[in-house]
Amino acid sequence: MYVIMVYDVEEKRVNKVLKIGRKYLTWVQNSVLEGEITEARLERLKSELKRCISEEKDSVIFYIMRTTKYSERQILGVEKGGKGNFL
Amino acid sequence: MYVIMVYDVEEKRVNKVLKIGRKYLTWVQNSVLEGEITEARLERLKSELKRCISEEKDSVIFYIMRTTKYSERQILGVEKGGKGNFL
Repeated sequence: MYVIMVYDVEEKRVNKVLKIGRKYLTWVQNSVLEGEITEARLERLKSELKRCISEEKDSVIFYIMRTTKYSERQILGVEKGGKGNFL
Repeated sequence: MYVIMVYDVEEKRVNKVLKIGRKYLTWVQNSVLEGEITEARLERLKSELKRCISEEKDSVIFYIMRTTKYSERQILGVEKGGKGNFL
């Protein structure tokens, strides 16, 4: 499945969240990672993040696409990071 | 179609990009908007943004889902903004 992870966390936790995210997904731009991932690895990513973020102050959203067949990715301006081999 | 818009732009253009984005989509968290939108309105949103961003320095990515039937949205922590009636 294809996942887009976006996060809005307090400054002191940004590096830690990014470091965890990059173990599983491709950094795309500020606060955004994406990529192909298995169910098991997504669960592991989520539990690592849960141990790191503040449930009251931080927000991490996963958009999970079982298939990218009905999806498309368009960009304006510069491609800052990688592209998680989005079809 | 359902669209997730993420942006990474220079500080002096953030407010303008957010203001334009909010005319078409729901603010979700820092640098992320989402929502149901027609093809025509997406084209209008993109042309407004093109007039505002720097093609060399800024980055705006649209993840476009023709259907949300094969997609899911999961969140860790707090829901900061709205939720664009993602199924």
